[in-house]
Amino acid sequence: MKMKLNLINPNTTWSMTRLIEESAQAVASPDTAIRAVSPDGGVPSIECHLDEAIAALGVVEEVRRGEAEGCDAHIIACFGDPGLDAAREVATGPVIGIAEAAMHAATLLATGFSVITTLERTVVIAEHLTRKYGIHNHCRRIRAVEIPVLGLEDPASQAYERILAEAKVALAADRCGAIVLGCAGMSDLAKRLGIELGVPVIDGVTVAIGFAEALVRCGLGTSKNGDYALPPAKTPCGWAQGLAQQVPVKP
Amino acid sequence: MKMKLNLINPNTTWSMTRLIEESAQAVASPDTAIRAVSPDGGVPSIECHLDEAIAALGVVEEVRRGEAEGCDAHIIACFGDPGLDAAREVATGPVIGIAEAAMHAATLLATGFSVITTLERTVVIAEHLTRKYGIHNHCRRIRAVEIPVLGLEDPASQAYERILAEAKVALAADRCGAIVLGCAGMSDLAKRLGIELGVPVIDGVTVAIGFAEALVRCGLGTSKNGDYALPPAKTPCGWAQGLAQQVPVKP
Amino acid sequence: MKMKLNLINPNTTWSMTRLIEESAQAVASPDTAIRAVSPDGGVPSIECHLDEAIAALGVVEEVRRGEAEGCDAHIIACFGDPGLDAAREVATGPVIGIAEAAMHAATLLATGFSVITTLERTVVIAEHLTRKYGIHNHCRRIRAVEIPVLGLEDPASQAYERILAEAKVALAADRCGAIVLGCAGMSDLAKRLGIELGVPVIDGVTVAIGFAEALVRCGLGTSKNGDYALPPAKTPCGWAQGLAQQVPVKP
Amino acid sequence: MKMKLNLINPNTTWSMTRLIEESAQAVASPDTAIRAVSPDGGVPSIECHLDEAIAALGVVEEVRRGEAEGCDAHIIACFGDPGLDAAREVATGPVIGIAEAAMHAATLLATGFSVITTLERTVVIAEHLTRKYGIHNHCRRIRAVEIPVLGLEDPASQAYERILAEAKVALAADRCGAIVLGCAGMSDLAKRLGIELGVPVIDGVTVAIGFAEALVRCGLGTSKNGDYALPPAKTPCGWAQGLAQQVPVKP
Amino acid sequence: MKMKLNLINPNTTWSMTRLIEESAQAVASPDTAIRAVSPDGGVPSIECHLDEAIAALGVVEEVRRGEAEGCDAHIIACFGDPGLDAAREVATGPVIGIAEAAMHAATLLATGFSVITTLERTVVIAEHLTRKYGIHNHCRRIRAVEIPVLGLEDPASQAYERILAEAKVALAADRCGAIVLGCAGMSDLAKRLGIELGVPVIDGVTVAIGFAEALVRCGLGTSKNGDYALPPAKTPCGWAQGLAQQVPVKP
Amino acid sequence: MKMKLNLINPNTTWSMTRLIEESAQAVASPDTAIRAVSPDGGVPSIECHLDEAIAALGVVEEVRRGEAEGCDAHIIACFGDPGLDAAREVATGPVIGIAEAAMHAATLLATGFSVITTLERTVVIAEHLTRKYGIHNHCRRIRAVEIPVLGLEDPASQAYERILAEAKVALAADRCGAIVLGCAGMSDLAKRLGIELGVPVIDGVTVAIGFAEALVRCGLGTSKNGDYALPPAKTPCGWAQGLAQQVPVKP
Repeated sequence: MKMKLNLINPNTTWSMTRLIEESAQAVASPDTAIRAVSPDGGVPSIECHLDEAIAALGVVEEVRRGEAEGCDAHIIACFGDPGLDAAREVATGPVIGIAEAAMHAATLLATGFSVITTLERTVVIAEHLTRKYGIHNHCRRIRAVEIPVLGLEDPASQAYERILAEAKVALAADRCGAIVLGCAGMSDLAKRLGIELGVPVIDGVTVAIGFAEALVRCGLGTSKNGDYALPPAKTPCGWAQGLAQQVPVKP
Repeated sequence: MKMKLNLINPNTTWSMTRLIEESAQAVASPDTAIRAVSPDGGVPSIECHLDEAIAALGVVEEVRRGEAEGCDAHIIACFGDPGLDAAREVATGPVIGIAEAAMHAATLLATGFSVITTLERTVVIAEHLTRKYGIHNHCRRIRAVEIPVLGLEDPASQAYERILAEAKVALAADRCGAIVLGCAGMSDLAKRLGIELGVPVIDGVTVAIGFAEALVRCGLGTSKNGDYALPPAKTPCGWAQGLAQQVPVKP
Repeated sequence: MKMKLNLINPNTTWSMTRLIEESAQAVASPDTAIRAVSPDGGVPSIECHLDEAIAALGVVEEVRRGEAEGCDAHIIACFGDPGLDAAREVATGPVIGIAEAAMHAATLLATGFSVITTLERTVVIAEHLTRKYGIHNHCRRIRAVEIPVLGLEDPASQAYERILAEAKVALAADRCGAIVLGCAGMSDLAKRLGIELGVPVIDGVTVAIGFAEALVRCGLGTSKNGDYALPPAKTPCGWAQGLAQQVPVKP
Repeated sequence: MKMKLNLINPNTTWSMTRLIEESAQAVASPDTAIRAVSPDGGVPSIECHLDEAIAALGVVEEVRRGEAEGCDAHIIACFGDPGLDAAREVATGPVIGIAEAAMHAATLLATGFSVITTLERTVVIAEHLTRKYGIHNHCRRIRAVEIPVLGLEDPASQAYERILAEAKVALAADRCGAIVLGCAGMSDLAKRLGIELGVPVIDGVTVAIGFAEALVRCGLGTSKNGDYALPPAKTPCGWAQGLAQQVPVKP
Repeated sequence: MKMKLNLINPNTTWSMTRLIEESAQAVASPDTAIRAVSPDGGVPSIECHLDEAIAALGVVEEVRRGEAEGCDAHIIACFGDPGLDAAREVATGPVIGIAEAAMHAATLLATGFSVITTLERTVVIAEHLTRKYGIHNHCRRIRAVEIPVLGLEDPASQAYERILAEAKVALAADRCGAIVLGCAGMSDLAKRLGIELGVPVIDGVTVAIGFAEALVRCGLGTSKNGDYALPPAKTPCGWAQGLAQQVPVKP
Repeated sequence: MKMKLNLINPNTTWSMTRLIEESAQAVASPDTAIRAVSPDGGVPSIECHLDEAIAALGVVEEVRRGEAEGCDAHIIACFGDPGLDAAREVATGPVIGIAEAAMHAATLLATGFSVITTLERTVVIAEHLTRKYGIHNHCRRIRAVEIPVLGLEDPASQAYERILAEAKVALAADRCGAIVLGCAGMSDLAKRLGIELGVPVIDGVTVAIGFAEALVRCGLGTSKNGDYALPPAKTPCGWAQGLAQQVPVKP
């Protein structure tokens, strides 16, 4: 079944977009095409509530474009799942955040999991998501390695070693059976970590690709009944005019 | 004690901004100055997840400006509390959403309350907030009268009569002791409704003004320790450049 | 990527096993082989706590056989997810229940969903699962049409019409945006219902197939660290001797 | 009031059945007769999800026999309460699990308690029960001493000393006022531990005996209205044929 | 085993105390002596938060006297369980509220129960207790028949008929398998209601007697480690001097 | 707007009443008069469940007197909020407990807070309140410095230093952004602690004054619809006669 997935990196660092695209390609079905993009406007990395708020609008724009280009589903590839609810309003296909994909997947593989994320200040964002998704009882603990998002790609940060070390602490102390990686930028480390740790190490990007394929194959899209119905048409003013017109693109 | 409060109407309809300002003035201390504004950019009314996402950035901008102009605290006068967490990051004074103010206040006056809001599709937004604030056990039910936000000011909508009728249903059916008004645009109706219904009818705008004064008098501001610390300085690109520079304005 | 999925119908009615297999084949990737089976021992339909308890052991046996035959993942195709935790202990690949798959999927497509199930007495079983999986806040209501599981295949039961009618009631009354079908035997009705209702109608069998493919492609299996580790070897006695030897089959 | 209680040890180790019987006799009323049994088929100890699943069927069989022999109530003497819901379906008298009895009792004696159990891998089973019974807020922590169930009777295991030591750690660290013993095989240690620790040490076996007597004296049995109604008659096949016929024994 | 139970009716209506005593005698063991009392000071019936607050002190006094007279356990025979925590501080034996006893018992007999209580205004008190005891998920609904406590004894109130009618509504509408009586003054109606309704009808007075006997036989008392330790000695002043001296009576 | 607030110290130590009054005066509006009192009867400090129960009645009496003297709102200045529900029944104006005020305020300033209280045995009382108010997810931890309430005023207790030290531990270990002071007697330390710690340090007395002013300015009082309606008139007997007659004073 031919399919096109819209893989949105909500930050504007295209090297990370490429890294995520590679992870996605590695697990996607042969028939699946991937549109991997960053928004036109936004911030280079997403590490606080404000970054999330800015990224949300970029995500919505790219979901709209993806819909117009015939994408069947959309993935928000940032662990805070910025703009998820708004994106669902403008989409007809499914929209999946990588935090939600990774955390749901973790509950299918272990009775408890811990998250390893970047900066301590983002921990509360992930904590809010565990409650929103109903997964707080499965999430044993959220741990930060204090490496900024863009530091992950810098060899000097020793990201792999520090994440590995923190994951070992989690497995010893948190009564968890799986590790969830708390940043899309860790996507390339999941397999190696999984082998070395001997437990499932879950990267939301790859899992979300698979979940999106699954929903599309089942003919399922975002409900247009209720709060995810297409938003009422409005005319944004000021700087917001710069955003894709709020009138829904499709259908 | 002289004080300046930043009363932000997150939508761009200035007639509503003026209505809210009047409500605020009526309860503020004589020494309190009020800066009542709408953002430069945004949408004329806020009735869905996407409107909330757009409004969030406008709120942040106005909080920044308010801080630069010496405001002591900030009120987000839209019942979805858009941009609340991001706004707190850029503020040093307290930031209070009117939904959170109204719902906390309701728990001080009755063991259960119901909310009367505008459109059914916004009910889930209020529901999410009750969980975020921990007030879902006090909130008996959220009811919509199916009047759009901007319809409230239109006499043809019979807003007062329909809210009154719905509140009577709530009092009869929901085991609630108080009514929370689920839209800043209902602010002018609270007093009359309260008299006619004989129970507390809570408007978040006025309560938030009072709570803000209270916190400022106690010398309390937003914690800068943890996830509400000033956001890391970044350079937004694309349409986001149009936003006030992300570098924080004040200490 | 070649893959083999173990699709277990926990009851012993092979006509239902065939129906489920067809649903699964319709959505599986071309490279995916499906082993569709019912256990050797068990009950013809699963409609109460006792049926669940009996079915659990049949499920475990078939997971063991599936592992021995090289299956990469296992699906428990009964909405009560009988034997899920025990099955995970004996598996190395992922094990997914269709209730958990359907309910997680529903949260990706709508902020609230209702379940339509067979008999009223099974409602509490589904309710327990919503709490176990953390999805009780998304599940608006569980409704029964009072058709026994094996009645679904009998045209005289008018299953399609009654499920459709109940779903319409749910959409009108429950503030839900999606419908979850609460029995594997409804698998063949999902597509038609979805078209007629205009909202996502989620069948756990097909979704679980897709989720299983997704996890396998990501190289993820059941955690063997913690309570899902292989069970300690023991020698069952009495009637339990008849079960596949409790010594784990693989690694 | 003459009464007969059905004390079921869900594992097949009769030396433990005798130990439990002794504990029960020590607290039962003079008029109470006790039928202490292990099932015909099952596993010698219950230490994982699979063991629980196997034990569940043995429990059901013994509840049926007990009903046929005129027992007034049934106790499931394993801390995982295996088969509890299914057992209630086939019973007319009350059915009480020792975990549920012990945990409910603990809430009557202290605002918080900790559990001391056998193996770490069973902790999650107890944790699930605390949520099912609604007692997770009272349960401060579940601790394992890493002694297998059958090791408790082996003097070399130093069970008493290790449980005592762990309980002391719990009292110092967990803000708990009582200790719950997490295995029926610890039943004989409760009194001595209670004296040495100076806090309530709760053994579910003895408490369940008393609770069962209480319910029977009040004329209360398992509700036959709803999901605990007698199960629909079915004909199990294969190895499940070996089970007592599924047709209910009594009324 | 000889035992003495302190059955405290927290209101000052001795005719109700006698009624409760009769219910208790009917289920107590032959060796159990019952001290049935009302406090010296208090209110004739308990129907609001203020009545609860007044009754709490009377309960504490009677627990102290009971301890001094050698009682082994204490029962607070009012469905709001007034003074429970304070009473536990001054007791060495167990202290059981009838609401807590009834609600715990209900969870042993059915997966869901509804409560039938006296006045609507007390519903919230019972609701608070379901949360405190962790039983809110089992409690389907709390219903009031609008008969004041002291009206229960007046034949003109038709208490039996109205409770019966409300219970029938509950069984039809609430998906509950058992009925909990929400007032000690309904104690004499439980058996007849149970026979007529065909489901467990639970009276907290009788269940609490049995639970108290159970705990005492197991040698268990209130934990004196933590917040239930004997209260620090203080000298109450003013009207509070009239209370039994706050210095603990026993050990 | 002229206003009169009833500031009730529920214990009978008037030196603490004066200290609290000073804190209150420092933040109250110039037009606000404060009636600062201790009850006629009660205990010198409130440190356990029994003290809370005794203090509750004193609080109710003073709320009644305050209402008779024309007070517009009432503050219960003890961190356990003793008698809160009963006090609301007899009041027409708002009644605010300082624990509830402080904890609600903390959620407006930080996503997580820790409480520093006096004695370990009172921790569970604050814990119960966090659940009652729905703030348990925001409250990271409750810590005790083991100084009795009346010891706070004794320089030898080094209260300031020990609270400061514990707060530093909390900020380092609890992932909290604000500190809540868990005793009215710490009211005079808040400002100095806030400066030294650099985070919001919240004293419930001052915040409650401000919240009360806010509600009164908005024309809001305690709901008289539902369980906070005026209590039914009754004639207390015995020692309870000494209480202000239970017949409501006003209106």
